[in-house]
Amino acid sequence: VVKPAADEQQRLVAALRAGERRALARALSWVESGHPGAPELLTDVCQASPVPWVIGVTGVGGAGKSTLVPRLAQGLLAEGLRVGILAVDPSSPFSGGAILGDRIRDTGDASSRVFFRSVATRGGSGALAGCVHDLVRVMGAGGFDVVLVETVGAGQSEVAVMELAHTVVLVCAPGLGDEIQAIKAGVMEVADLIVVNKADLPGAEATAHTLRQALGLPMDAHHLAEGRNDDGQGPCRWHTPVVMASSISGQGLDQVRAQVLAHRQTQRDNGDYAARDRQRDRWRMQQLFTQLVVERATECAARMSVWSAIEAELADRTLDPWTAAARATDSVISACFKNRQETT
Amino acid sequence: VVKPAADEQQRLVAALRAGERRALARALSWVESGHPGAPELLTDVCQASPVPWVIGVTGVGGAGKSTLVPRLAQGLLAEGLRVGILAVDPSSPFSGGAILGDRIRDTGDASSRVFFRSVATRGGSGALAGCVHDLVRVMGAGGFDVVLVETVGAGQSEVAVMELAHTVVLVCAPGLGDEIQAIKAGVMEVADLIVVNKADLPGAEATAHTLRQALGLPMDAHHLAEGRNDDGQGPCRWHTPVVMASSISGQGLDQVRAQVLAHRQTQRDNGDYAARDRQRDRWRMQQLFTQLVVERATECAARMSVWSAIEAELADRTLDPWTAAARATDSVISACFKNRQETT
Repeated sequence: VVKPAADEQQRLVAALRAGERRALARALSWVESGHPGAPELLTDVCQASPVPWVIGVTGVGGAGKSTLVPRLAQGLLAEGLRVGILAVDPSSPFSGGAILGDRIRDTGDASSRVFFRSVATRGGSGALAGCVHDLVRVMGAGGFDVVLVETVGAGQSEVAVMELAHTVVLVCAPGLGDEIQAIKAGVMEVADLIVVNKADLPGAEATAHTLRQALGLPMDAHHLAEGRNDDGQGPCRWHTPVVMASSISGQGLDQVRAQVLAHRQTQRDNGDYAARDRQRDRWRMQQLFTQLVVERATECAARMSVWSAIEAELADRTLDPWTAAARATDSVISACFKNRQETT
Repeated sequence: VVKPAADEQQRLVAALRAGERRALARALSWVESGHPGAPELLTDVCQASPVPWVIGVTGVGGAGKSTLVPRLAQGLLAEGLRVGILAVDPSSPFSGGAILGDRIRDTGDASSRVFFRSVATRGGSGALAGCVHDLVRVMGAGGFDVVLVETVGAGQSEVAVMELAHTVVLVCAPGLGDEIQAIKAGVMEVADLIVVNKADLPGAEATAHTLRQALGLPMDAHHLAEGRNDDGQGPCRWHTPVVMASSISGQGLDQVRAQVLAHRQTQRDNGDYAARDRQRDRWRMQQLFTQLVVERATECAARMSVWSAIEAELADRTLDPWTAAARATDSVISACFKNRQETT
């Protein structure tokens, strides 16, 4: 793939800004596949495009995230917000059923209005989170107010992705024992809202009780039904609520919607919302800096033929990987780049 | 933790080489925790220490890896080999039951002779694989001939770890449907031996049949019972066999042992064994090079106060993360380091 002409990329951004669905799909593909035009596209996209509200939805498999997310999307749509869904699949070679092509999604009545996209990226959890960050910015240029980022599982990659969100929803279900796992692993500290899904199943009350206890919440949660989050600690301090819901019967879905909206309001009032936006950009910049530095150093090492001598010594075991790496680093820094402090 | 005195680290290596169990545990802890003495310890350890035969054992949860691995260890012990087990836990915040402290292991009769160690490292799959590489080298200095590297799950991190092994064993069990997952995700291409564990359960024959069919193997696998791997393609070409086994009844365990030994012999005969050792060291060197370059560039950026100006522009959105990262990279390379091509 060759780098596109500047006008091709500008036309794409213009069409994206005009709200064309096909331009959106194409821009997302550019970013996802690491197309050579992606960096300039993203630079353009960032200029004067609003950043969407990012709601991360996580939880172990079987908790019913993929049914809950479209219902939440519908609820936010009814509030007049433009809603998109990014379903993130960390492409585990053979974790439970996380094979992209197999995912058939029920987006319900809103299927024609809620934009849905599956994301699968190879690479570590950092690379995945970086990609999601960029996709969210593209969605912003496409006019979306809210992006629901849903993860398939609930491992390390998913936590990295959740760190990008303004609002994190943890979905649990009775009988999975995930409330215990969540408490142990400290995931509850990341969650802004915990949904006990499948509330019609036996054990749902017990699960909610365990979670509330662990969070130190009052067992009586009637105030949540009114979309309030007033635990007596002042309006600017958020206390993670536990809401019981059922995507099937519709029970509690209004509360879920009301609580995510309340969370956004609290975040805006206390400045956390803007802070998270800044933090996210800073994190992405640092990640890109690391990537560029490594690219430049690798090019330099190749130009200097640093590896050929070292690899021979490594192969006959006169050199170990640690000493070899240190030597290569010194070569690149002192020969190909030169430290100014030494030259001046 | 401060860097240890050189003689402390030398004493540790000497005790490790003398086969002291406590020195082994301490050296492994240094590496696992990123102790400041670890790089020099590893440089020492690599000098004149043999590299163990690494057998990677992977497969989805529930396939019975943690029962099979000690049985295989016992079998290799009976061959006169010194055997150690590293159980790798990619510390997913809340994947299924992968919490280190909860793991209770049955190492059977060999518990006093087979060294067992759980490994949990934070960081991406690359960091985990790098750590396992180093731990294996420490085990080599401690006199181990074989290290069985067992993974808890079977995701991306686990595949990265498997790439370090000389011999990869994929463990399946009837009814889990993992043979289908393995075929889809291409994990079968990595496996050198597939074990259908829990062979006494219904459906085991069907699972083995599906796997053999997918591999294009003859359905009649009697030659495997004699520890041969002669599929008519010559002695130097390995064809992944499917072996039925039961850790409980002991069925097929001799075949598993015979096949891993046969695989090692074939690899040695055709040069793949040594090639994999070289490849592993080269990979680790490249990984450490990347790490060192990033460390140096980060230090340089901090010394130059590169970030302070950029972060202000980033915060007020006059700069996007992509342009900002490129500018920081240029600053570090042209100001703090200087390209020789420009100066000469």
